[in-house]
Amino acid sequence: MKALKIPEATVMRLSVYSRYLSQIDERGVTTISSAEIADDVGVSPAQVRKDLAYFGEFGTRGVGYNVKDLNYHIIKILGLSTSWPVIIAGAGNLGTALSMYGGFRDRGFKIVAIFDNDEAKIGYKLNGIEVYPMGHLAEVVAQKKVKIGIIAVPAAAAQEVADQLVAAKVKGILNFAPRVINVPDSIELRNVDLSVNLEILTFNLGYKRGR
Amino acid sequence: MKALKIPEATVMRLSVYSRYLSQIDERGVTTISSAEIADDVGVSPAQVRKDLAYFGEFGTRGVGYNVKDLNYHIIKILGLSTSWPVIIAGAGNLGTALSMYGGFRDRGFKIVAIFDNDEAKIGYKLNGIEVYPMGHLAEVVAQKKVKIGIIAVPAAAAQEVADQLVAAKVKGILNFAPRVINVPDSIELRNVDLSVNLEILTFNLGYKRGR
Repeated sequence: MKALKIPEATVMRLSVYSRYLSQIDERGVTTISSAEIADDVGVSPAQVRKDLAYFGEFGTRGVGYNVKDLNYHIIKILGLSTSWPVIIAGAGNLGTALSMYGGFRDRGFKIVAIFDNDEAKIGYKLNGIEVYPMGHLAEVVAQKKVKIGIIAVPAAAAQEVADQLVAAKVKGILNFAPRVINVPDSIELRNVDLSVNLEILTFNLGYKRGR
Repeated sequence: MKALKIPEATVMRLSVYSRYLSQIDERGVTTISSAEIADDVGVSPAQVRKDLAYFGEFGTRGVGYNVKDLNYHIIKILGLSTSWPVIIAGAGNLGTALSMYGGFRDRGFKIVAIFDNDEAKIGYKLNGIEVYPMGHLAEVVAQKKVKIGIIAVPAAAAQEVADQLVAAKVKGILNFAPRVINVPDSIELRNVDLSVNLEILTFNLGYKRGR
């Protein structure tokens, strides 16, 4: 398959479509139109068609898309047809919440270990996942073939933990700490700033008031 | 001020730039070039200039942007020059993590109440914020002039909680449950699916391997 230049906003929507397709598939829906997808996920029908057009012709005019087929293709494109072992750095509330977040499991992400520096937490199991000391990071990453590390530590510790993840040879980092961190270009980094979403909300609320 | 048609992807980046500007402002940096912003937040310099151009001329050629000025304008545009009282539905690990998330406080969002149906949690304080029964939602929203509600309950309860938030007359909902929910068009809804970010990561990792 030729490498596709797909914009990140499209990848993000594909991920949303896929979860939606899984949901309606569970409910026994077999075919769906782009207009229905659009309406239910809150995107314009033209945008849905444009996004899905990256992958050739899936739909049948007047019939719509086969739910299972379309979802299978999207999942494959997103790289989710294999399972991804993931580790979490930080066993606080956020790390704990992430370790039991159903949305990860459903999508093929398996949290295989949690790391923390707090002696009281080490050896303890969070939702069945063992908490290791940070010093064991490289060892566990190698042993469990982990490609992705999630940073769920306070902002002040985020850069140090990122450096440790890089040294442990993860390929991708998802950073939940509200702080810009630096990693080498060879590492795929995503910063998840939870307040960004609130800010889009306040922007839109202000916009609606006709600011 | 005339209403601006700003794409959501731009709003998202403005939010990231603003946090970055706050960070360098704290470190005493007074001016910055678009190239430096671009490099540090991982966006192309052309994109940074294009995003900031929505708001007229801020920068001085050869000197760059005044950090405080630029940040002040972005914060105003995002609707963050006033404080927003926010409530959280769900006092589990995610609700608890969100209630103490530094990134919210830093950006003018104040969590004023948490709601849960678990009798054992009601009346208890999480990080100084009282946990109320769901039945008190409308009353607290009215009393504390809350415009935004965050859903941090399991997927199965998300729609019911969304309906309760709508009935309580919030204007915007941030949904963390990994489930598509339906609200009236008059409500501003953002779905935060935490696994979307992992999926963009796996997509990019696959892409780099030259899938």
